Amino acid sequence: MKQERRADDGIRPVTIAYIAELAGVSIPTVSKVINGRARVSAETRARIEELVNTYGYRKPSAGNRSNLLQLVFREMDVIGAVEIIRGVERVAREHRFGVMVSEFGRADSTGSPAWDDTVARRPHCVLAVSQLPEAERDELRAKGIPFVVVDPIHDLPVDTPFVGAANWSGGRAVGRHLAELGHRRVAMITGPDSLFCRARQDGFRAAMDTAGRPVDPELVVRAELTREHGHAAAAALLSRSDRPTAMFASNDMQALGVYQAVREAGLRVPDDLSVVGFDDLQVVAWADPPLTTVRQPVAEMAVTAAEMALALGRGETPQQVGLEIATTLVVRKSTAPPSS
Amino acid sequence: MKQERRADDGIRPVTIAYIAELAGVSIPTVSKVINGRARVSAETRARIEELVNTYGYRKPSAGNRSNLLQLVFREMDVIGAVEIIRGVERVAREHRFGVMVSEFGRADSTGSPAWDDTVARRPHCVLAVSQLPEAERDELRAKGIPFVVVDPIHDLPVDTPFVGAANWSGGRAVGRHLAELGHRRVAMITGPDSLFCRARQDGFRAAMDTAGRPVDPELVVRAELTREHGHAAAAALLSRSDRPTAMFASNDMQALGVYQAVREAGLRVPDDLSVVGFDDLQVVAWADPPLTTVRQPVAEMAVTAAEMALALGRGETPQQVGLEIATTLVVRKSTAPPSS
Repeated sequence: MKQERRADDGIRPVTIAYIAELAGVSIPTVSKVINGRARVSAETRARIEELVNTYGYRKPSAGNRSNLLQLVFREMDVIGAVEIIRGVERVAREHRFGVMVSEFGRADSTGSPAWDDTVARRPHCVLAVSQLPEAERDELRAKGIPFVVVDPIHDLPVDTPFVGAANWSGGRAVGRHLAELGHRRVAMITGPDSLFCRARQDGFRAAMDTAGRPVDPELVVRAELTREHGHAAAAALLSRSDRPTAMFASNDMQALGVYQAVREAGLRVPDDLSVVGFDDLQVVAWADPPLTTVRQPVAEMAVTAAEMALALGRGETPQQVGLEIATTLVVRKSTAPPSS
Repeated sequence: MKQERRADDGIRPVTIAYIAELAGVSIPTVSKVINGRARVSAETRARIEELVNTYGYRKPSAGNRSNLLQLVFREMDVIGAVEIIRGVERVAREHRFGVMVSEFGRADSTGSPAWDDTVARRPHCVLAVSQLPEAERDELRAKGIPFVVVDPIHDLPVDTPFVGAANWSGGRAVGRHLAELGHRRVAMITGPDSLFCRARQDGFRAAMDTAGRPVDPELVVRAELTREHGHAAAAALLSRSDRPTAMFASNDMQALGVYQAVREAGLRVPDDLSVVGFDDLQVVAWADPPLTTVRQPVAEMAVTAAEMALALGRGETPQQVGLEIATTLVVRKSTAPPSS
């Protein structure tokens, strides 16, 4: 990739207006010569061409972007932020690109100084984690800056490139695992409105339906994706007289809250309750007992999205505009056949 | 902060050579005029000055750096990498700077493509996490790019700006806490050779010495800063007939390994052993029981270092070239008076 020269050593942009001024002709005349159109005298044309050759006028174009890849987080405390940054940085470095990292907040940031600064740096491409508001997409498109959304949490228009995780398949693997262990009363702690939570639930339900053990709607509780909310949801489910023998949390943080509720109820994992999470945070392998969960391919998603964004930046058309990377069920010690 | 104009719209750098060519004089002649030296005819001077005014020649200088702050990790899996990036990005954004994030690996990276690309981007300043090899410091200094080291793990020359944590004071707070609880046989799991591990140990010993209960050298075991090594070290210490009543680990990961060894020995925290860590990782508050530890001011360190680096980039002289940010003992449920 050719690197652009920085305007570090004293410059003045050579515009059409500037050439016109030097040549003593009008701007449309210069424009005609540069664009190869007729109706300019041979003598004027020669003078303009000489000036253009001397001053190196170059047409502005959308291709004149920097060798920077812009990585945008809404909030940087998402799962796997470090893995995302590492993966993107490694790919960018191999392509001789630098990575700019920004945190924009949840709202549309167009018009803010941070947004204006970002666009003014003319990134080669933008990689947005979780979401990219419509106004930002529109402005990037208008500026000719391609973008890819990593792990989108909301629906995107069909032409928006994205790389996500196979959440539905992950949820399905959990359902199959619990059904194979023999569980019949299975609870599910769902998450807030988002694509990935819905996909995890749907996959889980699909597997339980296939096993002939549809999930009892009374055992489905909605909660935020935090340890505290997982704890409260699990406490409510465990206080039922017909309490479940297994629980699928929408993420690992909720599952850690389930562990706490089980301890407080004087019960044990997995003897009294099998627990499954989602994400495979590093810490859940150290939990007591180590948690069965679904591994999110965060680093692979980041690497794939970075390659896609750089390809779009080069003007290439990717074979697929949306990709889902496979998830993996990691069976540890928090799941076992039901004791009763 | 004035932003530099990018070379996006067709430019040619206006160098002294270029002005000389246009004026039909030698390069030294242009140089003399620009630098205000004598021995140039009035007529030539006027011609050159007119050209300089027309073409906007500007002296290259070390000040002509970009509005980028370069954040360098050796390995990005350090404690609090996200907090560091967030803190730095927030400060940079307020100053209308962008943050480039790179991972260089442990070795000196001068001469590598990634290093050359980084220097070629002319960052305003460099923030290096944990370390910055001498060759890199030398090259940055030669290029007029100021730098600050965040949380240095090795000794730096006295003129190297850094922001660290008050590790010695943190270790001392742990010793005072355990002495006040009445512990007399206290073990210490030390870490590998590094400034921060040594400071934590020294502070701990100082407090125990002051309390008249010097640490028994037989109860000091060296281990890597991982859960596995903390586990092995604790298992060895717990197998002693005169086992300690409290254990200070060099970081939280070691402390989590201690928890596992205590469980495996059929003992309980804090009834049979008080445990203290260092760092205050988010997960240790969720451990069973929640861990007493020392909070590392990671975000504050990053913010302070970013402000210092930007000030150095502006050519300011900071009041202090090295700063240590205070640490805080966070007492949770893993420490109690000895039962015997």
